Amino acid sequence: MIYGGIEAGGTKWVCGIGDGHGELLESETFPTTTPEETIALAAQFFRNGRALGGVGVGSFGPIDVHRASPTWGQITTTPKPGWARTNVVAALRSALDVPVALDTDVNASALAELRWGAAVALKTFCYITVGTGIGGGAMVNGEVLHGLLHPEIGHMRIPHDQARDPFDGACPYHGDCLEGLASGEAIRQRWGRPGQELADKAEVWKLESEYLALGLMNVICTLSPQRIIIGGGVPKQSSLLPLVRHRLRELLAGYFDAPDLKQAGAIDRYVVPPTLGDRAGVLGAIELARSAAQHREP
Amino acid sequence: MIYGGIEAGGTKWVCGIGDGHGELLESETFPTTTPEETIALAAQFFRNGRALGGVGVGSFGPIDVHRASPTWGQITTTPKPGWARTNVVAALRSALDVPVALDTDVNASALAELRWGAAVALKTFCYITVGTGIGGGAMVNGEVLHGLLHPEIGHMRIPHDQARDPFDGACPYHGDCLEGLASGEAIRQRWGRPGQELADKAEVWKLESEYLALGLMNVICTLSPQRIIIGGGVPKQSSLLPLVRHRLRELLAGYFDAPDLKQAGAIDRYVVPPTLGDRAGVLGAIELARSAAQHREP
Repeated sequence: MIYGGIEAGGTKWVCGIGDGHGELLESETFPTTTPEETIALAAQFFRNGRALGGVGVGSFGPIDVHRASPTWGQITTTPKPGWARTNVVAALRSALDVPVALDTDVNASALAELRWGAAVALKTFCYITVGTGIGGGAMVNGEVLHGLLHPEIGHMRIPHDQARDPFDGACPYHGDCLEGLASGEAIRQRWGRPGQELADKAEVWKLESEYLALGLMNVICTLSPQRIIIGGGVPKQSSLLPLVRHRLRELLAGYFDAPDLKQAGAIDRYVVPPTLGDRAGVLGAIELARSAAQHREP
Repeated sequence: MIYGGIEAGGTKWVCGIGDGHGELLESETFPTTTPEETIALAAQFFRNGRALGGVGVGSFGPIDVHRASPTWGQITTTPKPGWARTNVVAALRSALDVPVALDTDVNASALAELRWGAAVALKTFCYITVGTGIGGGAMVNGEVLHGLLHPEIGHMRIPHDQARDPFDGACPYHGDCLEGLASGEAIRQRWGRPGQELADKAEVWKLESEYLALGLMNVICTLSPQRIIIGGGVPKQSSLLPLVRHRLRELLAGYFDAPDLKQAGAIDRYVVPPTLGDRAGVLGAIELARSAAQHREP
């Protein structure tokens, strides 16, 4: 049996087909435009392929991930124009007539990294993406964390030294939350250019590492993950993760009694990029579909 | 079968005996002095009672809660004088010759609130105590959260407006972390008197509610709890929780699409005091012992 998966991002959608063993048989990427157009392109991709056992979606959020909820499948309060209240699950189900599974993009990526990537054999870990926005997914004791809604790590509040960084923050809801200060969009607004064009500006990455280290500190204080995986476009700047790890150790200040957090060499294996790279999201989405099919009532 | 429990706090120890149904048969409280003296008093209390099926400890931290670890049972990097590297489990086991179970004081309280209190029927929730220090425990999908170590919610970093509050913070490790700004000890250092003597000072509780609301905001962004229970001495100031709830709703800014977080009346049932009050810790510790006995290999 083969399954479809969509990494439904705010900037682009990645659609893929796989057999549930961590390999992509085929895939296609297109920009996220209107809900109608984007969902139609995805449906077209899957209709052209072989019969699918189901389609999984790892979506940007916030989304309603609770199956028992009347609004299950809906993208809820997103500031992305046109997308608030779009029900991705309902639209795909009616277009494709197959079962559709849903989770956040970051929970899907976490799932893929658990199966085939940087979190194999871990029970409790976190997957954070730093791209246009900042999102975080988590597994705790081997299960995906949803709780009341789902984690929204990007919207936590962190110290912001206005004297050092007078930028007010880019989040339309919270101003200078973590996402408002450290997302790719925040970098673009603060420095007037996207991060890819700022590779040689040391002050950009020093400041960025300060905010990300504060965010990771708070994740460690709250979720106590065994490892933190950081994906997304922004950490592709190769100087960034070493700066984040260094600053994080300073912030932790030796309080947390674990070699992973105290030793310079060990923290390199604690804060890591995704082993599956950019394929984590779509592979995780396929795994959502496979796992839902396996657990479905006959 | 009856079991013993200890809420091992940094200020006082509460020892109790119970039958595992949420009732305390007897209890005794004494101040926390040196490890030797305090542990000896606890051992004496339990030796005077009937035969116990085991003793559970809910301890201040940080502690090593991983049974497979060579330092399981140890209080690790606490700044409390004399207590760092004390192995509470080993000392009690050798004094009493019964099985000893261990978790953080806040995880024990969370467990008690799950069984008989404010978290009955919940799967994912958080128990925070604001006393001399600030601690947080959590259950996720019905299981206690440990992860790499255990949550240390008090040490997360939050915005600190030095112009409004020039106090540098009371945490010996992190200065102005949440605990450094908002614990009972921080209140005492900032205002020169303990919180109990500041009941009529509106500015004290306004500032305190700002910090606690920021902390809860970060907990919601990370753990996505279905409810947050706040115990400890500081929230006994009756004006505090209403201020925290009000400020929390402002900070969330309508982004989180759940009635519990959006509606003024509903948030009163989302951020709540412990139903079991000050007995949550010791009842949870007894439950740790009962639960460990039930799951023990015969």
